Amino acid sequence: MSNKQKTITVVSAHSADFIWRSGGAIALYHDLGYQVRVICLSFGERGESARLWKDGKTLEEIKAKRRAESEEAARILGAEIRFLDAGDYPLQITKELQDIVVNEFREHQPEIILTHSLEDPYNFDHKRTAEFVLECRVLAQAEGYPSEHGILGAPQVFSFEPHQPEQCDFKPNAFLDISSVFDRKRKAMECMNAQEHLWEYYSELAKRRGMQAGRNIGSAISLSGSKITYAEAYQRHFPTVGGTLV
Amino acid sequence: MSNKQKTITVVSAHSADFIWRSGGAIALYHDLGYQVRVICLSFGERGESARLWKDGKTLEEIKAKRRAESEEAARILGAEIRFLDAGDYPLQITKELQDIVVNEFREHQPEIILTHSLEDPYNFDHKRTAEFVLECRVLAQAEGYPSEHGILGAPQVFSFEPHQPEQCDFKPNAFLDISSVFDRKRKAMECMNAQEHLWEYYSELAKRRGMQAGRNIGSAISLSGSKITYAEAYQRHFPTVGGTLV
Amino acid sequence: MSNKQKTITVVSAHSADFIWRSGGAIALYHDLGYQVRVICLSFGERGESARLWKDGKTLEEIKAKRRAESEEAARILGAEIRFLDAGDYPLQITKELQDIVVNEFREHQPEIILTHSLEDPYNFDHKRTAEFVLECRVLAQAEGYPSEHGILGAPQVFSFEPHQPEQCDFKPNAFLDISSVFDRKRKAMECMNAQEHLWEYYSELAKRRGMQAGRNIGSAISLSGSKITYAEAYQRHFPTVGGTLV
Amino acid sequence: MSNKQKTITVVSAHSADFIWRSGGAIALYHDLGYQVRVICLSFGERGESARLWKDGKTLEEIKAKRRAESEEAARILGAEIRFLDAGDYPLQITKELQDIVVNEFREHQPEIILTHSLEDPYNFDHKRTAEFVLECRVLAQAEGYPSEHGILGAPQVFSFEPHQPEQCDFKPNAFLDISSVFDRKRKAMECMNAQEHLWEYYSELAKRRGMQAGRNIGSAISLSGSKITYAEAYQRHFPTVGGTLV
Amino acid sequence: MSNKQKTITVVSAHSADFIWRSGGAIALYHDLGYQVRVICLSFGERGESARLWKDGKTLEEIKAKRRAESEEAARILGAEIRFLDAGDYPLQITKELQDIVVNEFREHQPEIILTHSLEDPYNFDHKRTAEFVLECRVLAQAEGYPSEHGILGAPQVFSFEPHQPEQCDFKPNAFLDISSVFDRKRKAMECMNAQEHLWEYYSELAKRRGMQAGRNIGSAISLSGSKITYAEAYQRHFPTVGGTLV
Amino acid sequence: MSNKQKTITVVSAHSADFIWRSGGAIALYHDLGYQVRVICLSFGERGESARLWKDGKTLEEIKAKRRAESEEAARILGAEIRFLDAGDYPLQITKELQDIVVNEFREHQPEIILTHSLEDPYNFDHKRTAEFVLECRVLAQAEGYPSEHGILGAPQVFSFEPHQPEQCDFKPNAFLDISSVFDRKRKAMECMNAQEHLWEYYSELAKRRGMQAGRNIGSAISLSGSKITYAEAYQRHFPTVGGTLV
Repeated sequence: MSNKQKTITVVSAHSADFIWRSGGAIALYHDLGYQVRVICLSFGERGESARLWKDGKTLEEIKAKRRAESEEAARILGAEIRFLDAGDYPLQITKELQDIVVNEFREHQPEIILTHSLEDPYNFDHKRTAEFVLECRVLAQAEGYPSEHGILGAPQVFSFEPHQPEQCDFKPNAFLDISSVFDRKRKAMECMNAQEHLWEYYSELAKRRGMQAGRNIGSAISLSGSKITYAEAYQRHFPTVGGTLV
Repeated sequence: MSNKQKTITVVSAHSADFIWRSGGAIALYHDLGYQVRVICLSFGERGESARLWKDGKTLEEIKAKRRAESEEAARILGAEIRFLDAGDYPLQITKELQDIVVNEFREHQPEIILTHSLEDPYNFDHKRTAEFVLECRVLAQAEGYPSEHGILGAPQVFSFEPHQPEQCDFKPNAFLDISSVFDRKRKAMECMNAQEHLWEYYSELAKRRGMQAGRNIGSAISLSGSKITYAEAYQRHFPTVGGTLV
Repeated sequence: MSNKQKTITVVSAHSADFIWRSGGAIALYHDLGYQVRVICLSFGERGESARLWKDGKTLEEIKAKRRAESEEAARILGAEIRFLDAGDYPLQITKELQDIVVNEFREHQPEIILTHSLEDPYNFDHKRTAEFVLECRVLAQAEGYPSEHGILGAPQVFSFEPHQPEQCDFKPNAFLDISSVFDRKRKAMECMNAQEHLWEYYSELAKRRGMQAGRNIGSAISLSGSKITYAEAYQRHFPTVGGTLV
Repeated sequence: MSNKQKTITVVSAHSADFIWRSGGAIALYHDLGYQVRVICLSFGERGESARLWKDGKTLEEIKAKRRAESEEAARILGAEIRFLDAGDYPLQITKELQDIVVNEFREHQPEIILTHSLEDPYNFDHKRTAEFVLECRVLAQAEGYPSEHGILGAPQVFSFEPHQPEQCDFKPNAFLDISSVFDRKRKAMECMNAQEHLWEYYSELAKRRGMQAGRNIGSAISLSGSKITYAEAYQRHFPTVGGTLV
Repeated sequence: MSNKQKTITVVSAHSADFIWRSGGAIALYHDLGYQVRVICLSFGERGESARLWKDGKTLEEIKAKRRAESEEAARILGAEIRFLDAGDYPLQITKELQDIVVNEFREHQPEIILTHSLEDPYNFDHKRTAEFVLECRVLAQAEGYPSEHGILGAPQVFSFEPHQPEQCDFKPNAFLDISSVFDRKRKAMECMNAQEHLWEYYSELAKRRGMQAGRNIGSAISLSGSKITYAEAYQRHFPTVGGTLV
Repeated sequence: MSNKQKTITVVSAHSADFIWRSGGAIALYHDLGYQVRVICLSFGERGESARLWKDGKTLEEIKAKRRAESEEAARILGAEIRFLDAGDYPLQITKELQDIVVNEFREHQPEIILTHSLEDPYNFDHKRTAEFVLECRVLAQAEGYPSEHGILGAPQVFSFEPHQPEQCDFKPNAFLDISSVFDRKRKAMECMNAQEHLWEYYSELAKRRGMQAGRNIGSAISLSGSKITYAEAYQRHFPTVGGTLV
């Protein structure tokens, strides 16, 4: 297995979530030599494209625009991106969607999966995506699930940060130092033309999480000796296992 | 700092807790070249020495016996051990005890601290120890706390497993593979002559946690290629921080 | 917007829930000049009409009876009432039902929405209704959701009190003083002929909540100077926002 | 009612769950003269039959094998067993399945129902089964639910122990002393040829729970005077009601 | 042990708590032949005697009055009562108080202990009493705790109902049918001259809990065939252990 | 009571907490005509004055410096400030301190009390302050507590935001729009010379909470018509009570 390129997979309810919430992780893992797969269950065409609707765009135009922006952002971050076009508000979970995601996991064998938080009273697509991803991961582990690919191991799952973390019972238990790749996350965010106000918002959030990361290790300097300026917050779902305590 | 031997510190309410609950971690970190400090706040002389009381021993005899057993266990595991004799049932937290533990942390600068869980309706000394350790850690970080030693950084704290984990709201989020050192943990447990029934109990628990560890990584084989047969369960208190997601 | 009559909307799983649980709020908001909309998802024909089934009534007779009683209660309380006849035990949530409720919210733009609690192990229709209402509220906020009406703002949602509040993790964070309208709530309850034992039960509950309301402000006299004799308990879902702390 | 044989019902997501998790309760209630009904929603053919798939068995062969093993285990434990073949990974909940389970409850009027825990991030069929059983119990209480059998009372529901209890928020609040029937539970477990490693695992778990049971009553000897060697852990869902405090 | 009269012990922060919150249990256990011990840590002289202070009574007069009322109530209920006069608002927990309560438990060996809930933001004496009782119970189990009496077993602990249960995270898991003794509880409440408004309040609460008790067994008729009209709500702290599931 | 100036009271563990965490509320309530009382239990001389210790200042110099800065900040915000000098790291709660705070509450009769959150694993003085304030509030309500002032009513208590809210189980349920006074909060923060890095940090936090406040009412424009740019987050402890639902 050591010769094979390793994979992490990000499952995003709508086509921009992965940028704001895990753009740093994507760029970082790309730099570490991983294949990074981004799966967008929908384009966020109904629920997260207010300005385009106000501009009188059609559904198809909106989807196309959202797709183009996300493809560009993924390119900047170094990710492969796949759109499943399942529909949003509400997200439509079907047997077909389940088969696709289970097979995605089995084929690419991600070491880590990133997705939404399990609660989000402001956005039920997010909650549904998190539940769906956790279930697909278990289905992908079953020998008897029909698939041409071998079963999945037990990849760790991390929830990325929702917009209002406390209201979503999101309690970060892992801070990821994204200082070395923040410039690319910023560029990826800037692909979202219609959401300029969020560029600054998520830049400031990254600084805030960076400062908190430093507090949690008692130093603004990471173990590798560089300054932690920017971080992303994550919530791990399963216990860690290892020969040391981390 | 790289030349200096690194330290982990275990704070045990009574003199035998560290063996049953973290004997594997101690032996493992000893093998990794760490200095391992065990601090026993009391001997467990009143609350955890039933057989000795029934045998008619005096308080001083009981303390001496408990001390001797724990010293022997620490020796087998590779730890330095220190007894603070604060009294048990109930544990007596004083300003003096606080000064000692704060200075212990400042002098030895542990990278990791292990102690009890924050809840234990069967044993209030355990709960009190956990609260006390967490507070001493914060006090040790304060520039203005009177001490001859420099301030402490922000070492991670792990709770080790209580006797009835679910009743103590103990939810493991870190499994430590202790397969390579289990034989020494067993020997250390066997120093506790009066508690023979617990040797098997905690051996079986280690197997159970080992099996669960394997389930959580989807394999009974660890990343380093050896079989996970025995594990200890821990609960991490603070978020992890790093350049990768673990 | 100031010239337009304001609205509150109550979504009731079965046709009598709104009376026992929020009859006071309805009468009070009616008196404040609000349009009050009551939406009954079902008649409670299967699950909450035991006596009528024992009396040998048919399904259609039961629905008609329940509808008549609820219409009369709504009239007394000052509410407009709408029956969606979605079926109960279990409540059937469909795409059509979702469209109706989303459009109801968009058309009437309620300032506040009242519904069931998110947990109720004694009644899954209640839980399902609460989840459904919260999701319809979010869908109604989406520009791209097909509708002839404009998008909804962000109305506060309150859960009203379930029958066994502690078992439903219902923790009141808002007490509503209904003393001035309690007589009408009582009359509305008395429309439910078949449930005479509940008239007294919910009258006593209102007294109990009234006494607790007084305890929470340190006086049985409200800010407006009248005595708080009766209250209803509610649980607010979203943070309050304002220029003072309330 | 006193002349009629009393019933307890166990609802198992897959065909072996009832053995590992409640085999002791089944044998014990059988000895107390109860009719014990085991309802297997699926055979666990896809998700819990890894070895059979690896051996190249077909789906039908696997189902037949799983059925045969479970029938034999049920026979040893003294239970009647019924297979609903609803499919697993994921379990398919349908209107038909609901009707069957509601009628099962109405016909047999169980005094107690045993099933899975409400959370299980390692197995969504378990979670879904628990939710489904709780809802069917409520539906079975409704006069208007179409059925040839009379309504159900309010039987207590107990969750049996999941594989990783802490990760499933499983907090035991009832320990059942199964010492007198453990030999039969062991024999029933041994019917599961392909899962030999679990025989020992669940035997050790029963010992562990037995020791904890003793701790909770302050004695390894039960009220009836026998030694508690083995126990099963359960989580009660509803308050107890009685003329004494138990 | 069968020849000895069995005991239950109620620990009350203030001298009237035991009446409102567990008067039914006391009368019931008295009728069952138990010795019932009531331990009042304080008289509630500062925090729960508002009218007496307004009437200009001195501290000693208030204590005497409160004592007299509680003695009369205890007599009606059939309990022995003991006043420890530890002071209230705030309750003063001392080493001496601890010794007294530990010895009380060791001498009388209660089968069950009743006390306050672990949370009460309206009354910190209640919270402190609950914590203190739970710790004294553990201390009383220790062989090495100095005492002339033998060690305590592991009596179950029940919290009785606080004034605002939801705000105190009080979740009843045991309803006690007190219908047969309610008249005596009422008479005991009437000993509290200065709190006439509470007589009705707690009578109505008992009815409410009675109705809920009936709901939880699906019948207003108890197993012994009598009607459940009045109940008290309790929260059990430790798992039950037995040869059947209750 | 309408003629008397109304009061809000802020209880701060250390001398700067009130600025970062509730400076906006203070300025706002000052503008509303309230007397604002700030009570600093300590100067934060040991735990929150790292730079001064590094600069070689003595304990008394540090206290004087911290006092001067906080007085200036209070002046800018419009608050009266009182220093109780109880000592920090750890904060020393004594009977005398309790008497002072109880009397402070009784004399000034605050309508609202602001203080720390109930959990803070990074700062035990904060946790202890919150618990202490909640208890002093209850003691101040007792007729029998010795004091020359009349009893306190039941003022609402709000926790202000800790540094790492999610780790402190801080869940905001009230956002306060501080846009109109933010300039003064900024000036007050700038009084803290040694903590320049925090000026920007808390300015950004205010913007972030402002944006979230807007999301929770569905508009960046408040009810009074002005734009919500800055907000502070609070957690209310007790239910609201009123004649409308807020």
